[in-house]
Amino acid sequence: MKGNIIVGQSGGPTAVINSSLAGVVSAAMELGVEKIYGMHHGIQGFLAEDIVDIRDYVKGQEDIELLKRTPSSFLGSCRYKLPKIEGNEEVYDKMFEIMEKYNIECLFYIGGNDSMDTIKMLSDYAAMKGKPQRFMGVPKTIDNDLPITDHCPGYGSAAKYIAASLKEIIRDNASFGIEKPTVLICEIMGRHAGWLTAAAALSRDVDCEGPDLIYLPEVPFDMDKFMDKVKDLAAKKSSVVIAVSEGAKLADGRFVCELGNASDFVDAFGHKQLSGCAATLANKVAAETGLKTRAVEFSTLQRAATHIASLTDINEAFNVGYLACKAADEGKTGMMITINVDSRAPYQVSYGIYDIHAIANVERPVPAEWITEDGCDVNEGYEAYARPLIMGELQPIMVNGLPRHLVLKRDTYR
Amino acid sequence: MKGNIIVGQSGGPTAVINSSLAGVVSAAMELGVEKIYGMHHGIQGFLAEDIVDIRDYVKGQEDIELLKRTPSSFLGSCRYKLPKIEGNEEVYDKMFEIMEKYNIECLFYIGGNDSMDTIKMLSDYAAMKGKPQRFMGVPKTIDNDLPITDHCPGYGSAAKYIAASLKEIIRDNASFGIEKPTVLICEIMGRHAGWLTAAAALSRDVDCEGPDLIYLPEVPFDMDKFMDKVKDLAAKKSSVVIAVSEGAKLADGRFVCELGNASDFVDAFGHKQLSGCAATLANKVAAETGLKTRAVEFSTLQRAATHIASLTDINEAFNVGYLACKAADEGKTGMMITINVDSRAPYQVSYGIYDIHAIANVERPVPAEWITEDGCDVNEGYEAYARPLIMGELQPIMVNGLPRHLVLKRDTYR
Repeated sequence: MKGNIIVGQSGGPTAVINSSLAGVVSAAMELGVEKIYGMHHGIQGFLAEDIVDIRDYVKGQEDIELLKRTPSSFLGSCRYKLPKIEGNEEVYDKMFEIMEKYNIECLFYIGGNDSMDTIKMLSDYAAMKGKPQRFMGVPKTIDNDLPITDHCPGYGSAAKYIAASLKEIIRDNASFGIEKPTVLICEIMGRHAGWLTAAAALSRDVDCEGPDLIYLPEVPFDMDKFMDKVKDLAAKKSSVVIAVSEGAKLADGRFVCELGNASDFVDAFGHKQLSGCAATLANKVAAETGLKTRAVEFSTLQRAATHIASLTDINEAFNVGYLACKAADEGKTGMMITINVDSRAPYQVSYGIYDIHAIANVERPVPAEWITEDGCDVNEGYEAYARPLIMGELQPIMVNGLPRHLVLKRDTYR
Repeated sequence: MKGNIIVGQSGGPTAVINSSLAGVVSAAMELGVEKIYGMHHGIQGFLAEDIVDIRDYVKGQEDIELLKRTPSSFLGSCRYKLPKIEGNEEVYDKMFEIMEKYNIECLFYIGGNDSMDTIKMLSDYAAMKGKPQRFMGVPKTIDNDLPITDHCPGYGSAAKYIAASLKEIIRDNASFGIEKPTVLICEIMGRHAGWLTAAAALSRDVDCEGPDLIYLPEVPFDMDKFMDKVKDLAAKKSSVVIAVSEGAKLADGRFVCELGNASDFVDAFGHKQLSGCAATLANKVAAETGLKTRAVEFSTLQRAATHIASLTDINEAFNVGYLACKAADEGKTGMMITINVDSRAPYQVSYGIYDIHAIANVERPVPAEWITEDGCDVNEGYEAYARPLIMGELQPIMVNGLPRHLVLKRDTYR
């Protein structure tokens, strides 16, 4: 590669999105690329020419190791979507103008569905206009909902955090319950696909019974059946733990969390109180059964807990970044690196490359055959799929008792 | 010691309460104690003669190591308070009857304020009646509010979890904010004392700016000043992160979370439900500023995250259990083991033993001189105190990608 490269990170961060950045940067260093630029806050920052020289921060292998252990998007993120090409050519022209100004030959975008759409549009525009620049997608999403690739970097670490934390929470909840059980409802991310919520099942082992019920957004949520199941479990058990997706929906299409917000529940200031799915269900169970309930939301922790990231995931995230850079060097454009699982046991992967048009804007749900017939659990098909993805750890570099991170800017004062 | 011993765990679990159990058991094994009993679910289980033989589960050093890495109360917990002696002698007589039946010479109770009260009353009753049994308290509480001891086992690990998680959350929140900041409000446990919330300050380092504001329950919460500070920060910053105690209270004595609850929601035990302080503030900020807000509750995770426990804390928890057993063997009763910090840098501790009467039912708040003048942060005095407590890690034993635990009973079916 004779020109420079630029990398951007987009959408919700993951625990390993910086491993993919480390992969791109490592390959570019090996290829002798002169300038390795980063977009500060993705395409949105790029359009404002907010561009950093990554080598100012990543000076050697120690920094690569720290970067791999740093949560969130090192370069900053955005949720900016490129407008459609027709009628918005000035935006695209500006993109290419900046690329030319910085002599950028290849652009890498690490992200999920929307980011792959960005790569598609930029490579389409380049093809239309006969531009030489190349564009490669690097998959990233805790939601695991990209098609073609077996799974997405970011998912394994979020799944590991969820399963490990749930194991700890299940032990905690089981410590009481000598008289009445506490019903603990744990809300997990994934508005449209239940991949993350399914990971609750990975907590099951000889030392953990796992959650009693798992509700994915793929299955319509039946409130009456849910209440019956909770009452039945509470009668038999000293602890009841339920995992539910933030995106759980009734058959009529309403989100479960909307039920908690539908009642004009107004706080002391006259503001409408918004509660989550778990809080809504916990309130309902408490009110109708008198049982003690607790709502737990893993919230942003599930996408940021690099301290317990999966080594498998970290390595795969690194590799898709590395291979995207190598593929671009070989002349590829408008494509995304994919992970193929050649064998689940022993776990062996190879990497592919795929036309971005087949990937952008397609969402992949949890397959119906992995969801149990009663719709409130996943089966061994899912476990065989997901267990290898959470294997292994990368020891954090601990300083002053805490994991050390590599940061572009320590404080957020403008 | 010629007789047997029994150990109980009580109150909210911690990440290291089982290290203290491991300490008692290790000392008893060394002393050649014949039967090492455990109360299943504390005094409440004991009174129902729900007693286990700990050696059935802890057979050797590997089990001791697993026990040290197991969150929550291995023996189960309870929130049972012994009634006052006067007029309730039959309860006490039953306790001693069971102790005699099992030839129990010493009873150990691992817990916080209420548990130390239990030790006080049992040892008082033994003195009154001339009973030979001995009673020792082993300190445990994430709240860190026991007096006399410099700090309590359980606190260091919760503080480490809070600081490490907050570092990750701060990175996550900083990744967006290219246009408007997100105001993230993080709710931390500690109903009466702000020790845990103060730990948010430990996230500050060269790689992390830490939270912008820290609100302890020791300082009356001024809503107007809070809103002014948030608006001011939001104007200057691309990310605003606030740590607030679940027990934050207005000057008039109302909990902040009460403002968010239109009706006074009371749990089955008549306790006011304290979840929702962060949600209340996040709703208010969103409604009055139009900014995006996010409420995060560390919830039970902060007391259960043994996977990132502090090695200092694990070792001290082990030692207070070990020394309690040794002290009981030497004839002590009605006392609690304390931790004395002889030097903060380098960190050096010794252990003491103290009359339980000076400890039971006394709560220790964060000293006023460690809280900044504006009441929304802690200073270097706190950091010097707390930083040594979060140092070091004990590698979890990972099986199938997750930390392995030692469990008395895997499932919670009755």
